[in-house]
Amino acid sequence: MKVAFLGLGAMGMDMAANLAKAGHAVVPWNRSRKTLAGFGDAPPPLAGSIAAAVRGAEAVISMLADDRAVEAVVADGLLEAMGPETVHVSMSSISVAAARRLAEAHAHRARAYVAAPVFGRPDLAASAKLWIAVAGDDASIARVRPLLQAMGRGVTELGPEPWHANLVKLGTNFAIASMLETFGEGCGLMRRAGIDPKRYVELVNDLFQSPVYASYGDMVAEGRYGPALFRAALGLKDMRLVLQAADEFGVPMPIASLAHDNLMTAVAKGPDDQDWTALARVAQERAGLD
Amino acid sequence: MKVAFLGLGAMGMDMAANLAKAGHAVVPWNRSRKTLAGFGDAPPPLAGSIAAAVRGAEAVISMLADDRAVEAVVADGLLEAMGPETVHVSMSSISVAAARRLAEAHAHRARAYVAAPVFGRPDLAASAKLWIAVAGDDASIARVRPLLQAMGRGVTELGPEPWHANLVKLGTNFAIASMLETFGEGCGLMRRAGIDPKRYVELVNDLFQSPVYASYGDMVAEGRYGPALFRAALGLKDMRLVLQAADEFGVPMPIASLAHDNLMTAVAKGPDDQDWTALARVAQERAGLD
Amino acid sequence: MKVAFLGLGAMGMDMAANLAKAGHAVVPWNRSRKTLAGFGDAPPPLAGSIAAAVRGAEAVISMLADDRAVEAVVADGLLEAMGPETVHVSMSSISVAAARRLAEAHAHRARAYVAAPVFGRPDLAASAKLWIAVAGDDASIARVRPLLQAMGRGVTELGPEPWHANLVKLGTNFAIASMLETFGEGCGLMRRAGIDPKRYVELVNDLFQSPVYASYGDMVAEGRYGPALFRAALGLKDMRLVLQAADEFGVPMPIASLAHDNLMTAVAKGPDDQDWTALARVAQERAGLD
Amino acid sequence: MKVAFLGLGAMGMDMAANLAKAGHAVVPWNRSRKTLAGFGDAPPPLAGSIAAAVRGAEAVISMLADDRAVEAVVADGLLEAMGPETVHVSMSSISVAAARRLAEAHAHRARAYVAAPVFGRPDLAASAKLWIAVAGDDASIARVRPLLQAMGRGVTELGPEPWHANLVKLGTNFAIASMLETFGEGCGLMRRAGIDPKRYVELVNDLFQSPVYASYGDMVAEGRYGPALFRAALGLKDMRLVLQAADEFGVPMPIASLAHDNLMTAVAKGPDDQDWTALARVAQERAGLD
Repeated sequence: MKVAFLGLGAMGMDMAANLAKAGHAVVPWNRSRKTLAGFGDAPPPLAGSIAAAVRGAEAVISMLADDRAVEAVVADGLLEAMGPETVHVSMSSISVAAARRLAEAHAHRARAYVAAPVFGRPDLAASAKLWIAVAGDDASIARVRPLLQAMGRGVTELGPEPWHANLVKLGTNFAIASMLETFGEGCGLMRRAGIDPKRYVELVNDLFQSPVYASYGDMVAEGRYGPALFRAALGLKDMRLVLQAADEFGVPMPIASLAHDNLMTAVAKGPDDQDWTALARVAQERAGLD
Repeated sequence: MKVAFLGLGAMGMDMAANLAKAGHAVVPWNRSRKTLAGFGDAPPPLAGSIAAAVRGAEAVISMLADDRAVEAVVADGLLEAMGPETVHVSMSSISVAAARRLAEAHAHRARAYVAAPVFGRPDLAASAKLWIAVAGDDASIARVRPLLQAMGRGVTELGPEPWHANLVKLGTNFAIASMLETFGEGCGLMRRAGIDPKRYVELVNDLFQSPVYASYGDMVAEGRYGPALFRAALGLKDMRLVLQAADEFGVPMPIASLAHDNLMTAVAKGPDDQDWTALARVAQERAGLD
Repeated sequence: MKVAFLGLGAMGMDMAANLAKAGHAVVPWNRSRKTLAGFGDAPPPLAGSIAAAVRGAEAVISMLADDRAVEAVVADGLLEAMGPETVHVSMSSISVAAARRLAEAHAHRARAYVAAPVFGRPDLAASAKLWIAVAGDDASIARVRPLLQAMGRGVTELGPEPWHANLVKLGTNFAIASMLETFGEGCGLMRRAGIDPKRYVELVNDLFQSPVYASYGDMVAEGRYGPALFRAALGLKDMRLVLQAADEFGVPMPIASLAHDNLMTAVAKGPDDQDWTALARVAQERAGLD
Repeated sequence: MKVAFLGLGAMGMDMAANLAKAGHAVVPWNRSRKTLAGFGDAPPPLAGSIAAAVRGAEAVISMLADDRAVEAVVADGLLEAMGPETVHVSMSSISVAAARRLAEAHAHRARAYVAAPVFGRPDLAASAKLWIAVAGDDASIARVRPLLQAMGRGVTELGPEPWHANLVKLGTNFAIASMLETFGEGCGLMRRAGIDPKRYVELVNDLFQSPVYASYGDMVAEGRYGPALFRAALGLKDMRLVLQAADEFGVPMPIASLAHDNLMTAVAKGPDDQDWTALARVAQERAGLD
């Protein structure tokens, strides 16, 4: 399948490489220059423009930093370069509002659009073990399903409204942020009481038995807040988007407010390259620790 | 091993039965009359008093409702009936303050005392799959370890201070309460946005891969808040004990405050037999749902 | 002074009438039909369009519901109708972002613009006892100062950046919302403890000696949550704008989050005409009261 | 009237002196040595014991640091030294639980007891401008009313249950703490936005017109967090007592939780002699300020 891949950041590079490994003809594009390290000996050439990448592709995958980056790609000629059979698979983590605007822009030009945000950090992107939530019209999803399967370990369908997938993605990051704050508060209590926080997070995970709890719990218990696997500033952006959706739909989400606020504090005080686990550091600083 | 077992509630009955199944000579006692259903065809007779149960036992296990119930057992002659070789294994979920008072009372009379709170609900008690955290002096722990192994699937040692085990137990229940509030907020958002909350909790658990997330997530997504596996009133008690410890050690725990407050609301408004998952119901009621 | 007055709602009508009483030549305009009850026997005729109202005026005062209403007035020809000497006094409670866009739009066309949000509800508007915060260039402020004095009991200057006045206005409404939540929590505690909440709010105000505490305290203690003097939905809008500014400037404001969330709950559950004091009702409902 | 005065701290010294100035025969007692500076040229001698101070007195006033200090005075023979006509006026800020225990202890020995906590800091104690809330049986209150009037500018009666007065006192301190957090959050926002926080607190008080807002607002806007007029550690104690009562009566008080937590952070990080306004400093530190 001929696939234009827009956005070769920490996640996108490996996702595109996995598509190439699965035999798809990937035409990569990135706004800035990139060396295609992950593609093996004969990497494909970087397309010179969005239009050049997209023209003739059966699918376009975009994996970009935020609302603005995705909307800039649309403004720079994506829709005009798509054919009537091309499907745009938007995999970036974006706001509900931007997701709706994108769907409208595609519908306006009768172009196919599905949202397919991914769950997992760069290590899972590299090993093709992402989980993917996809939403949009059935026919378009069916056409791009092989691509999704080449990048992830599982795909969940969430119905015809693309933005639903983006909201569920935000809701999942909210659950991780809540776990980080929880570890921060709990480890703060244990440390102040003279108990090794590592034993605490181990016991919590003897109960939960979750690899996510295991890896994040260790980071918090050991005070490893960087270098970032997922930057605090990006975590803050996601909590902001959660709260925007919560406000739109009238749902009080006090833990999301708390995570948002602690990430603001982390960003105000911390180094640029801190992981969003730093919100657990902020929770402990409130107890005068560290 | 001859074991006095004090407290035959929803948890204790099955724990005592598992000890009997493992070949220990269990002498059960309960403050009120009980039928020993779980012990098979030839259940042991209920001891007529604490002293009668404890006299001659190598170990005493107490599994009682709260601080007051444990302290009442001590007040009613437990220490006087224990011999110099008897080890009291206190498995109840109690406060840090009560745990310290118990340790002092035993030390004062030179009686052996270890704390061994359990992780898991009645279904895990029945299948001997509890996780147990134990703290106290090494020699005492070594003597009662076979008993712990007969009741659980794993044992974590937490050093010589018995109350450390109680605090870790509270910290683990705090982590569950935080997850419940998180599910409540997240499901509230999804429902208001027109997304099936079951798909949301499934996707969260595709990420976390935790049996605890799976079972509690289903309960919240389906609105099953009773009959109680762990009553809201008991969850409230535990959050109160977490906050007392947080106050003693100077650690702000805003999620614990939130969980405590929502459980107060649940208890004020809800039926007596509601599960502590009801705190997720309260989170959704704030959005005008249900 | 010839003054175009745009927006004759609950506040604007009386403010415009007070200008007329002070001898100014007021040309009123409103998007929908209005009877000019407050202007005495010979009310001025309603202008047929924004342009008709503004043309030839020395000052334009806008007093409108929200960002959108103010921006609609600009879109409908306000700037084109203003002369180089006309000063636009924007008195609406709007967002920091909208306030900046307005300032830029005026600067782009070299038209004079000051922000002058007001403090007080309709009763103070009627008695010309509003407090007014004004920000913008000195010369423009000097020209419209007589108008401000005719509408209020005091004017505070906040420097050259118009949006500063809007942010301070939002910060003041935040302080009132916080007081309402405080009264809600405090009265909830007193009621549950069997103490008359009226005695509580009286004692609080024996200490604070504030007419604002006196009037709002009575409302909360007596459970008077409507008809609205300031609608809950408008209070919610203001808390949303506070939180947007807090997010932009990186300032955690947990009480603003709490007030926002409780107002969402109030709006989700309550009647349309409830006052924003209803956030104190929500605080008490959490205790199972009412 | 012959009055034993127990407790000559920052408040008690001036209160006792005001009683002496009003012509009462004050017999002062303090646990540690004190120089009676406030009593003018001929200060009364310090009683050598509680019993010596109390014997023969028509009234006993206690003005002590906390629950423990008050209960120590009772344990040291207060009740035994009181006659059947003596009224004990307990003016300390204590917990609801201690207030109830005191009332029971007096009832058990048929001694008269009223609670009369005071509102105001040492400056108001010196100028006899405290506000006093009194609760207890009518006859006892009537007998000590002249004493209360000599120490304050007003007295509010709160019915027959002494502890009601203590709870209202705590509820009033809660209102002040909430105002401090509000000023902290608001000033943080203004500072980050480039607005002078003094102009903000002035405008807030142009609205509220409260001397309490004026003086505390200035302290926060100017960053004056010490030396303490009311120590952060005492403010923390009071918020703890508020939350204990909130828990007993089932009332979620999220602002009290927030104030409690910020005071814990202040105490963990700050100097010993910081005022409880430091909770506003903590609120601003969350924004990376200072």
